[in-house]
Amino acid sequence: MSGVFNTVVLRKPYLLFLGEETNPLKAKTAFGLRDWAAESCVGQARMSGGTVELSLPELDPAAAFAAGARSLVIGVTPPGGRVPAHWAPLLIEAAQVGLDIVSGLHTPLESVPGLAPAAARAGIRLVDVRRPPDNLPRATGKRRSGKRVAMVGTDCALGKKYTALALAKAMQEQGLNADFRATGQTGVMIAGAGIAIDAVIADFIAGAAECISPEAAPDHWDVIEGQGSLFHPAYAGVTLGLLHGSQPDVLIMCHDPLRSRIVSWPDYALPSLKEAEQLYLRMARMTNPGARLAGVSLNTAALDDAAAQEALAQAERELGVPAFDPMRTPLQRAIAALLG
Amino acid sequence: MSGVFNTVVLRKPYLLFLGEETNPLKAKTAFGLRDWAAESCVGQARMSGGTVELSLPELDPAAAFAAGARSLVIGVTPPGGRVPAHWAPLLIEAAQVGLDIVSGLHTPLESVPGLAPAAARAGIRLVDVRRPPDNLPRATGKRRSGKRVAMVGTDCALGKKYTALALAKAMQEQGLNADFRATGQTGVMIAGAGIAIDAVIADFIAGAAECISPEAAPDHWDVIEGQGSLFHPAYAGVTLGLLHGSQPDVLIMCHDPLRSRIVSWPDYALPSLKEAEQLYLRMARMTNPGARLAGVSLNTAALDDAAAQEALAQAERELGVPAFDPMRTPLQRAIAALLG
Repeated sequence: MSGVFNTVVLRKPYLLFLGEETNPLKAKTAFGLRDWAAESCVGQARMSGGTVELSLPELDPAAAFAAGARSLVIGVTPPGGRVPAHWAPLLIEAAQVGLDIVSGLHTPLESVPGLAPAAARAGIRLVDVRRPPDNLPRATGKRRSGKRVAMVGTDCALGKKYTALALAKAMQEQGLNADFRATGQTGVMIAGAGIAIDAVIADFIAGAAECISPEAAPDHWDVIEGQGSLFHPAYAGVTLGLLHGSQPDVLIMCHDPLRSRIVSWPDYALPSLKEAEQLYLRMARMTNPGARLAGVSLNTAALDDAAAQEALAQAERELGVPAFDPMRTPLQRAIAALLG
Repeated sequence: MSGVFNTVVLRKPYLLFLGEETNPLKAKTAFGLRDWAAESCVGQARMSGGTVELSLPELDPAAAFAAGARSLVIGVTPPGGRVPAHWAPLLIEAAQVGLDIVSGLHTPLESVPGLAPAAARAGIRLVDVRRPPDNLPRATGKRRSGKRVAMVGTDCALGKKYTALALAKAMQEQGLNADFRATGQTGVMIAGAGIAIDAVIADFIAGAAECISPEAAPDHWDVIEGQGSLFHPAYAGVTLGLLHGSQPDVLIMCHDPLRSRIVSWPDYALPSLKEAEQLYLRMARMTNPGARLAGVSLNTAALDDAAAQEALAQAERELGVPAFDPMRTPLQRAIAALLG
């Protein structure tokens, strides 16, 4: 993550802590890290009764440190989003052997009894990844070197993070100089750096976005995770600030062809792909007049192969750019379009 | 301010504290309160050496309380935006006689030595008006009863607050059921309620805006102070979230005819009035499909009468709605257009 400043920065590699979780759906963070930051995960640690299995070596904190780990990451969501009191001894033990403690939960790590003094004595950090860095700047609006591709979407929760991760990986595999840039808590853990942009004070959204994808080499690509949607009645402000600060050269439109209403806001219809393209380009061109669309990422998980192919073909006809589903189709045509 | 919930709420009337300020430009908050909340200002209090003069009775805290005051409001901006240590005794004295202490400065009042314990003993509140209420909700996006008119602008700092205050006053004078709704710190002090929207966590901008103009009687008008601009590279996210949560029926476009570049962001040109109208209506109609423009408020302070009339006539020709300058022309035609 060279060149990243004024963002949350984590120390890798990780020991993934799973508590006594038995439901894999409550361990999405851990699975996301195992799948997308495999080289950064040296082991798993469970409490008695835990059955979630990442197929990583079972390590206690000392063994994990010896194996190279530098952070224990809480990879599960306990009831109420709070650290249970009985986790404290293991977290304190991890701090004592020299591991940073990393959490995306709601309660700050400081509030875990005994953990803050143990961290201070051990000289390790308690990192709440949703907490933004101090002293974020206001956006300058000035153009900076390097290329940027931003994921945007017709709604929340339809594959923007997954698309960015897959795109960055495919670009790297093609030998391109590309980095995933994280704007949400799981993304920050995967990348080891970034900012949960929805947790920033409103005045600094675009400024935080400028920090997330800072000045870079002219041939470097930042592949920027998206958040929310310009069409979302609650979160469009976050989306717009992120878009403006990112100053993307290229947009990838993320969409779910089966979705017709904004999730959990059923009074609101999803826009058409064309309507979404027009508004995103209109807004992106305020801070980067050259912004253009280079691809459509469809989440076709609920469709069979024939229906998925038809949906992809239709999206291509609508927008005139390559359509792909990062779960089932190659990304090369979209990458070629993105390179221009 | 009936019906306002989940916003900062101040106790009126006020004692305006001026420190030892000698420069009226550093006392804009105090003058704004005297001019726009005259009925809520019972007196002024100065330290030795202070020469700023509001033409209000000079009262010490006990006399102010006896005269009905329930809050001491810091009405000046000291160097560095911090409460100087030598103000502490007077602020503590004010707390002891039963006045809330109200501040829009950067340093929290809690950090003034001795003030927090004095406040706790006296049972009064320390109110940092830039600090948002706890537990703000996410926006529901649901329509609510009552009518709303929102000030929007081609840039920051061109008269949106002044326009909203003047409009609310003129509407009240016509016998309309109207309230100014505050979205910035000075506005909150004037209204005695509201939220500094730019200080809210990004996820809650639109939700805070819903709290600022809650459900009201069908014939009630919320006259909503605007913030930032959709065309501002740093603050457009704030503006969009405020617009979406406000769900305005009517927009008033605020503009400075002499300004061609965004203030302090000279790389960015101001939009034309027509371009601004189109984008604001496009965005406002996402949460209120009936949103329409009813007036243009021009800041013509730097123009002579003839040039001001020409600028107003030109703005009317461009947008086809009444143009006014609340500092020099009547608002009745705009109010008539607003009522539809």
